[in-house]
Amino acid sequence: MWIRHRSFRWLNDLSPVQLIVIFYGFAMLLACILLGLPVAHKEGVELPFIDLLFTAVSAVSVTGLTVVNVTETFSVTGTFLIAFLLQFGGIGIMTLGTFIWIVMGKKIGLRERRLIMTDQNQTHFQGMVRMMKQILLMIFTIEILGFLILGTYYMQYFETWQEAYYQGFFASVSATTNGGFDITGQSLIPFQRDYFVQFIHIVLIILGAIGFPVLIEVRDYLFSTTEQRKFMRFSLFTKLTTTTFVLLIVGGMILIILLEFNHFFAGKAWHEILFYSLFQSITTRSAGLSTMDVSEFTEQTELLMTALMFIGASPSSVGGGIRTTSFALVIIFLLTYARGQRTIRIFKREVHDEDLIKAVVVSIMGVVTYFTAVTVVVAVEPFDVLEIMFEVASAFGTTGLSLGITPHLTTFSKIVLILLMFIGRVGILSFLFTFNKEKKKGKNYHYPTERIIIG
Amino acid sequence: MWIRHRSFRWLNDLSPVQLIVIFYGFAMLLACILLGLPVAHKEGVELPFIDLLFTAVSAVSVTGLTVVNVTETFSVTGTFLIAFLLQFGGIGIMTLGTFIWIVMGKKIGLRERRLIMTDQNQTHFQGMVRMMKQILLMIFTIEILGFLILGTYYMQYFETWQEAYYQGFFASVSATTNGGFDITGQSLIPFQRDYFVQFIHIVLIILGAIGFPVLIEVRDYLFSTTEQRKFMRFSLFTKLTTTTFVLLIVGGMILIILLEFNHFFAGKAWHEILFYSLFQSITTRSAGLSTMDVSEFTEQTELLMTALMFIGASPSSVGGGIRTTSFALVIIFLLTYARGQRTIRIFKREVHDEDLIKAVVVSIMGVVTYFTAVTVVVAVEPFDVLEIMFEVASAFGTTGLSLGITPHLTTFSKIVLILLMFIGRVGILSFLFTFNKEKKKGKNYHYPTERIIIG
Ligand SMILES: [K+]
Ligand SMILES: [K+]
Repeated sequence: MWIRHRSFRWLNDLSPVQLIVIFYGFAMLLACILLGLPVAHKEGVELPFIDLLFTAVSAVSVTGLTVVNVTETFSVTGTFLIAFLLQFGGIGIMTLGTFIWIVMGKKIGLRERRLIMTDQNQTHFQGMVRMMKQILLMIFTIEILGFLILGTYYMQYFETWQEAYYQGFFASVSATTNGGFDITGQSLIPFQRDYFVQFIHIVLIILGAIGFPVLIEVRDYLFSTTEQRKFMRFSLFTKLTTTTFVLLIVGGMILIILLEFNHFFAGKAWHEILFYSLFQSITTRSAGLSTMDVSEFTEQTELLMTALMFIGASPSSVGGGIRTTSFALVIIFLLTYARGQRTIRIFKREVHDEDLIKAVVVSIMGVVTYFTAVTVVVAVEPFDVLEIMFEVASAFGTTGLSLGITPHLTTFSKIVLILLMFIGRVGILSFLFTFNKEKKKGKNYHYPTERIIIG
Repeated sequence: MWIRHRSFRWLNDLSPVQLIVIFYGFAMLLACILLGLPVAHKEGVELPFIDLLFTAVSAVSVTGLTVVNVTETFSVTGTFLIAFLLQFGGIGIMTLGTFIWIVMGKKIGLRERRLIMTDQNQTHFQGMVRMMKQILLMIFTIEILGFLILGTYYMQYFETWQEAYYQGFFASVSATTNGGFDITGQSLIPFQRDYFVQFIHIVLIILGAIGFPVLIEVRDYLFSTTEQRKFMRFSLFTKLTTTTFVLLIVGGMILIILLEFNHFFAGKAWHEILFYSLFQSITTRSAGLSTMDVSEFTEQTELLMTALMFIGASPSSVGGGIRTTSFALVIIFLLTYARGQRTIRIFKREVHDEDLIKAVVVSIMGVVTYFTAVTVVVAVEPFDVLEIMFEVASAFGTTGLSLGITPHLTTFSKIVLILLMFIGRVGILSFLFTFNKEKKKGKNYHYPTERIIIG
């Protein structure tokens, strides 16, 4: 929106990235106010402001870390509000904004398109609006299917069909948006032996976390004729992010099995081992739901999950972290460099230098942000360093898994986690560029180059 | 040495980096055998092989982590042997090798020069031999001065002048090479109120860790006339590494004071706070000596020191870690990138892209290596994750500080630390290139470039 009113004209000077960050901040504050309304609470519940803010940011950033028990604190209205916030955060403010614009018949200008592009991490304008419509249609379709399947199936667990569909609705939204909130009071632990429920959740989680562009390409492929398929190819992005996504899940699963074989998995049946390790590996991508209490795992598994959460989900998905593409490009770059080469070649394509630099910046900024947050939280909390590392990675990856210490944190640490969830959602590059005031592209003078001894 | 004997001719096919790695490995094995000789031990002491190897690698890599008490285990001969190994490792096998060559009047060919260049991390050939001579002369001068000052001063502490000079000799070698070994049995804790001893140690440690090229440039500057100085300038390397070195020490000191003000420093006098924080900040660069039991610090300070040890010393010095230049370039690059620019400009010079890439590779490889090591050690040890993070960073940075768990580690973890000390000494780039079999420079075909969405 090109602002014409005088008092808001300063908005025009902001970059798209700055606008997105401001929008998210505003949305989180609004969410905080809404959740603070008496109608959103159960009777007699009083929440301190910091806990309201934490819940609001956790919901809009689809993290799922909680400082309060959702069912005991929020009324049905409050719960629906949280589901709405997950939806809102998951799909992205800009996507929803576009939707409203389209519904209202407004023309979408270049500036709005740029905003959407930035929010969805896209590198080109074309087809943005069409893409947004497709994303919304797809997400709603997935969620409604999940809602119907889970709701109907839940009738064996709950006394009334209303309760079953209510649970099914929230579960479907929470899984698809990788929101990680639950109204069972103990995540998916009540269903730890129901592999059907777990399977549906796994499908919903993956569809939300694998990245919208991947979904669109796959759908286009599925809905095309054999003749058309000859001329279709999946983009490098889809190939890279999907491969990384699958490798992380499979690798994580194998490592969890190895690390827990004589511990948590001792005496368990093969199908239990299979589903526990698969679900807990998948959930680190971004979902945050779990079929067990992760604090029952050994320290080494918790450390592994910390690393997996730090990596996070695909870009342009509902998830956070440094994202799969950054991780993959950095690893491939190291291997390429070790072989004495410089150009990265994957799937018969060369990677653009600019993208590699972005990936490196995101990864290093991620490490710096993460380690700084861990240190300041360790400084004020009595908890184990590992516990703190886990919760901080969970916030940064907008994952929402917890070893149980988050509700007991001081206000200071809660603010740190709030900041991390925010950064995790808007993406570390956007966050970095928010402070970029100079718009000029590089200075046009040059100093002599001089070599330096490295490492 | 261009090998002519048939059985060793395969050595000619190795790259300089591979030769250096093999030389260091060989030196460590030899050190292990020498330390295993009965004459090196106190009577009745039997060391298992893994502890011998650990001590040998710790000495040659000038780390100073120990699994045994040096004074209780090794005879005077053994102690002198350790001092020799520190000397050997600190100055670098190649430097010493050059020295022997020069003494023996051998001509030094291009291949030998390339070896020295790689070992000292230099980027050009010229003046290598002259530089080696200068380094040796300078290190010996520093050590002898340190030895005389400390030995004479120590006479007030020890009963005989022999004992005083013996202690002074070992302390001077251990400080200058940043070796971190001690024969007091408790590092510098006996001198925690003697600021003169600490001051001398600080000077020796800094001279060893600040990087040989810096020493040479400073000496050249000091020994030149006012007229000559007009045409002299310090290299970009010297400016960058020295600035970073000083900033890390001052920053570390301030942070330690802030983090410990109400804990370890509670009730202490200002001069105690000053010297404790200064010494413990400096020692993380690479020295590993300490004037207190670092496990008395709070967890947050231990975490800070973990990060400082991970960064380590200047390149081309006695220290390890990712090195100051890598750290500085990566941070400056992030700041430059955040301002929307690409070329790094410092001290009115531009940084070569190749150097930036190296710094990034070293930093990321460092994080990957470090985190992998922490995870596997956590998997087999009962200790706190923070304790393990600290010891692993100490090995990687060849620092040698310890929270006291190293002697109690399993053989597996000791092997992990041995590997890290080795990598820390030869440098992560050298280690990476060791596995580089292809010598050809890049393939000459190109795939189309395709953009990817990042983080
Ligand atoms: K989540
Ligand atoms: K050391």
